[in-house]
Amino acid sequence: MTRPPADVGMAADEIDTPALVVDLDAYERNLDRMASYLAGKPVRLRGHAKTHKCPVVALDQVARGAVGVCCQKVSEAEAMVYGGVRNVLVSNQIVGAPKIRRLVGLARQAEVAVCVDGPGNVRDLDQAARAFGVRLGVLVEVNIGMNRCGVEPGEPAVALARLVAAQPGLRFLGLQAYHGRAQHIQDLEKRRETVETAIGHARSTVDLLKRDGLACEIVSGAGTGTYQFEAASGIYTEVQAGSYVFMDADYKRVQGFPAEFENALFVVATVMSRPVPERAVVDAGLKALAVDSGMPVVRDRPDIEFQRASDEHGMLALRDPGAALRVGDRLWLIPGHCDPTINLYDWYVVVRRDRVEALWPITARGAVL
Amino acid sequence: MTRPPADVGMAADEIDTPALVVDLDAYERNLDRMASYLAGKPVRLRGHAKTHKCPVVALDQVARGAVGVCCQKVSEAEAMVYGGVRNVLVSNQIVGAPKIRRLVGLARQAEVAVCVDGPGNVRDLDQAARAFGVRLGVLVEVNIGMNRCGVEPGEPAVALARLVAAQPGLRFLGLQAYHGRAQHIQDLEKRRETVETAIGHARSTVDLLKRDGLACEIVSGAGTGTYQFEAASGIYTEVQAGSYVFMDADYKRVQGFPAEFENALFVVATVMSRPVPERAVVDAGLKALAVDSGMPVVRDRPDIEFQRASDEHGMLALRDPGAALRVGDRLWLIPGHCDPTINLYDWYVVVRRDRVEALWPITARGAVL
Repeated sequence: MTRPPADVGMAADEIDTPALVVDLDAYERNLDRMASYLAGKPVRLRGHAKTHKCPVVALDQVARGAVGVCCQKVSEAEAMVYGGVRNVLVSNQIVGAPKIRRLVGLARQAEVAVCVDGPGNVRDLDQAARAFGVRLGVLVEVNIGMNRCGVEPGEPAVALARLVAAQPGLRFLGLQAYHGRAQHIQDLEKRRETVETAIGHARSTVDLLKRDGLACEIVSGAGTGTYQFEAASGIYTEVQAGSYVFMDADYKRVQGFPAEFENALFVVATVMSRPVPERAVVDAGLKALAVDSGMPVVRDRPDIEFQRASDEHGMLALRDPGAALRVGDRLWLIPGHCDPTINLYDWYVVVRRDRVEALWPITARGAVL
Repeated sequence: MTRPPADVGMAADEIDTPALVVDLDAYERNLDRMASYLAGKPVRLRGHAKTHKCPVVALDQVARGAVGVCCQKVSEAEAMVYGGVRNVLVSNQIVGAPKIRRLVGLARQAEVAVCVDGPGNVRDLDQAARAFGVRLGVLVEVNIGMNRCGVEPGEPAVALARLVAAQPGLRFLGLQAYHGRAQHIQDLEKRRETVETAIGHARSTVDLLKRDGLACEIVSGAGTGTYQFEAASGIYTEVQAGSYVFMDADYKRVQGFPAEFENALFVVATVMSRPVPERAVVDAGLKALAVDSGMPVVRDRPDIEFQRASDEHGMLALRDPGAALRVGDRLWLIPGHCDPTINLYDWYVVVRRDRVEALWPITARGAVL
């Protein structure tokens, strides 16, 4: 684990760079907004811990009403459970004996569930669960239009659910029905159309299951870009939003309801070179910022464009060559994509009103197993 | 730090996934090839540690004749020095009091040099070096066509070198003259042209400095894509190749002389879903593979295309829907870009002839400060 780039009590200006900085006021407002949106509805938040990778954030979500978290890897689930989270859904397929052993072992420590999309995996999970003396909760993952993992909706999903329900080591809990790419469709109406079709697949599958005597205690899915659609569907019981906590440059381009959330996460960088008036270089490149969803945006400086990143350099173009920007100046960058950016760091530097109030360890950083 | 995905003595098939795996035979052949190419030439290797971030690899380079390593961050330099490397060049500008203090402190522990491209930074370094009672080696970084950091060649570089030479806490060592983007120009002749122009800028600056009584003990630069040009220039004394150790999918598209190096680095992934015959999903996405220079390539399986990555999923398209590929099968992926991929992992799993022979800690993983 790397050294933290700051100490508690420091002024924000003293944080060493590049550093991953949380604006605590904005973060708390984001958490509160999601909690008040869901208050009184028959839908609860299951915060996606693949975004934040930090039990401190997970417990803040649970304190505001979240049922628990979901995550994508067993090692993330371990970090959450041992960080105090009592209910974790691995919203993914877990394949291979070592990971399955750890998963069922973890189910002795807390409420743990997992997703399946094929019969072989169902049998492997059942066998391991029985060997550990646990009854593992299982959701059938349905492909509602994303074309990634998941069985097809309708009869194929029902057949797999029947298989799950027939295993003594497993407990059929319901459906995982998530459409990841829909989250980022910028136009609100197009996004609504895509998600309504997806919700239709989930609904018809839930109905078929009910006719088969297989009630869905849980129907889980949705994200920051679509959560209001699934929350209003009448069939989803959980929304798996993650990015709403921090937001990023890519989500800020998505129109409509994610707009109520604020950018609460920044990579603070220092200008290390200003070789010519039109160009400057900061100390944050590919190893400090994920660029898979576009370049970061410079906060409060629309005159500066972050043009490209090499391993450890960020190249800035200055629209006004006369603009003030000197070696040693700091810029607050809004990452293009928060999840893989957070995964580069061991520490959140948590700032309130220009003072470092806490350092939160990113316990599940690098947890790919 | 995360748990290692394997134990020494395991069969390669038992490595948990995703894992960053080194083919030790290919790795050693790559190191040997560079060493024999440079043997007898007036040019030495300064291995770029920003690629491997691992003192074990650095010491393997030194054992084969490298003068030491270069790196981009003070925290990387610390990892190298405390891992046993005695000569480290920070081939970058180091800005800000906390980092400069650590840099000059480190110069008491080993031979440490740094690059500058502006007068303010020269004065800051000098002041800190004198406070620590060290004389810090300094290279003037010249912009030889990359348009990132660096003073312009010729008179501006000479003026800055004079300023360095006049500081009692600093020792002028020579020039940093690197053209990063030239490394990846695929066509050999176009690459040669770009680098010959760049070398011309370095040469004229070296000549001007000599006339001024400022001898360049070191002229450092070059990378895996161009090292033979700089090595033949007569003015470069060091080549800063990094990627040659492991190679990656992007460098393998570069024509001409990097072709002698083999792919020695892989991300081993497991198929976690095969929902339809045309599509499969592996357990390695954006947090297991850097995609800034393109998608990974599947080794030995030209029938499978790695199409896109989401946070924890890799989507594969199968050209032959009848092809054998089952849930639980393993694929060896050649990363698109080795440097930022390595930075995602805490461990190299080092394999020789299908057996795990060692686990090497990636000590400088996440070392951005």
